[in-house]
Amino acid sequence: MSFHVLISNDDGIDAPGILALVLEMKKIAIVTVVAPDRQQSAVGHAITMNYPLRTVPVRKNGEFFGYAVDGTPADAVKLGVRFLLKEKPDLLMSGINHGSNTAINILYSGTVSAATEGTILGIPSIAVSLTTHDQADFSYAAKFAARLAGRVVAEGLPQGTLLNVNVPAVPEEKISGVRVTRQGNSSWEDTFDVRRDPAGREYFWLTGSMAIRDTDPETDQIAVRENFISVTPIHYELTDLTQLERMKHWSLGDLK
Amino acid sequence: MSFHVLISNDDGIDAPGILALVLEMKKIAIVTVVAPDRQQSAVGHAITMNYPLRTVPVRKNGEFFGYAVDGTPADAVKLGVRFLLKEKPDLLMSGINHGSNTAINILYSGTVSAATEGTILGIPSIAVSLTTHDQADFSYAAKFAARLAGRVVAEGLPQGTLLNVNVPAVPEEKISGVRVTRQGNSSWEDTFDVRRDPAGREYFWLTGSMAIRDTDPETDQIAVRENFISVTPIHYELTDLTQLERMKHWSLGDLK
Repeated sequence: MSFHVLISNDDGIDAPGILALVLEMKKIAIVTVVAPDRQQSAVGHAITMNYPLRTVPVRKNGEFFGYAVDGTPADAVKLGVRFLLKEKPDLLMSGINHGSNTAINILYSGTVSAATEGTILGIPSIAVSLTTHDQADFSYAAKFAARLAGRVVAEGLPQGTLLNVNVPAVPEEKISGVRVTRQGNSSWEDTFDVRRDPAGREYFWLTGSMAIRDTDPETDQIAVRENFISVTPIHYELTDLTQLERMKHWSLGDLK
Repeated sequence: MSFHVLISNDDGIDAPGILALVLEMKKIAIVTVVAPDRQQSAVGHAITMNYPLRTVPVRKNGEFFGYAVDGTPADAVKLGVRFLLKEKPDLLMSGINHGSNTAINILYSGTVSAATEGTILGIPSIAVSLTTHDQADFSYAAKFAARLAGRVVAEGLPQGTLLNVNVPAVPEEKISGVRVTRQGNSSWEDTFDVRRDPAGREYFWLTGSMAIRDTDPETDQIAVRENFISVTPIHYELTDLTQLERMKHWSLGDLK
């Protein structure tokens, strides 16, 4: 089996996580890399419409590695699929992100955003994250991602659904297993650090900590905490159908 | 009934749409405005973590109007709720956006992102858009939004669900009615305009047109086309439960 995978990320093309993923995927697939030229964390699903984009070819270890784009992860994927590649790739992979993307936090994630854009463009897509911000070894996460990639190419994914994968940052022998999970409900408990600049004016820096509200082991949040690799199928059918039925009794026509 | 509403947007605090909404809401509620200091379209659900934020008080017509934030719509809402306001508001409204936010495009929308952030923070939230990019009269959309706001405060919304409202940009007497809808499946068909800068280097500008894939009158996309006000309940429970069940048979544990 040989297939063509487009790889992007949000940590930027020079990040160690994308290098580990590319090296592993090259063993089983044709790889094209199109990624942001710098760190783009917490950009959500932003796209660049008011400015032009540029691409720069990037070399690593003496050979062509991929294209750097001066935009967001979604920009990189759009430009890769719509312009740089002659044919639609068989698979899109985003990552490996340096830090987890679980629960409510996936709404802010550039890593997940790149995979979302792949999904919108009709490509089976996988976002992969390693659950630590500390210096880390991406090699096991890359190996698992490559095995999962083969499975996804074989099985396919429904139109509009992507896989969000979080690999615990523990030695391989400590990994408990693989769990198919739901998105958790935990979120960042924001606070703002208030500071003053040299001229005495206030400024605010977003900070805070993750508030763990999940207890169900079937959630991404708890699965990684129990050292399971978490694989969550997510989709962008956002309609709340239960509330839709309820609102049919709101007689909204009266508000016209 | 009196209640406290926080109003934000993505077109920036100086946009006509937010002014129309604020003037209308002041008739029935206590209003606080915290909005980006400039246009922030297509920022998705981005937040600013790597830079500090600042706020500037803005006056309109000789009186205090609200706070301008040099960040994204989600930043403005977070800073408003977590720092500027002493108490959590009863409602968050985002808009009125200059341009529709329907179907897949809501994933890129800063207007919807502000309402999403309100939802994450536990506040019933409404995103409101007027379906034109041309010069437009926001007054009817503002009136409808205010009536809907009263209803939402009275009825409540489930935790995690917001309302995405699109008002057709036609004269009031041409509005067909109000329809509770599903998110459509239409999306932007991207192309990149390739240009050369004065030094001869290529650059790329995202362009394209909306590809209407929806036919169901119960979708947001078709409702507004038929001059109905579209009200879509959306939520951020992204898990694809059908695919989750299917993947339990993938034996992913074998990939460990």
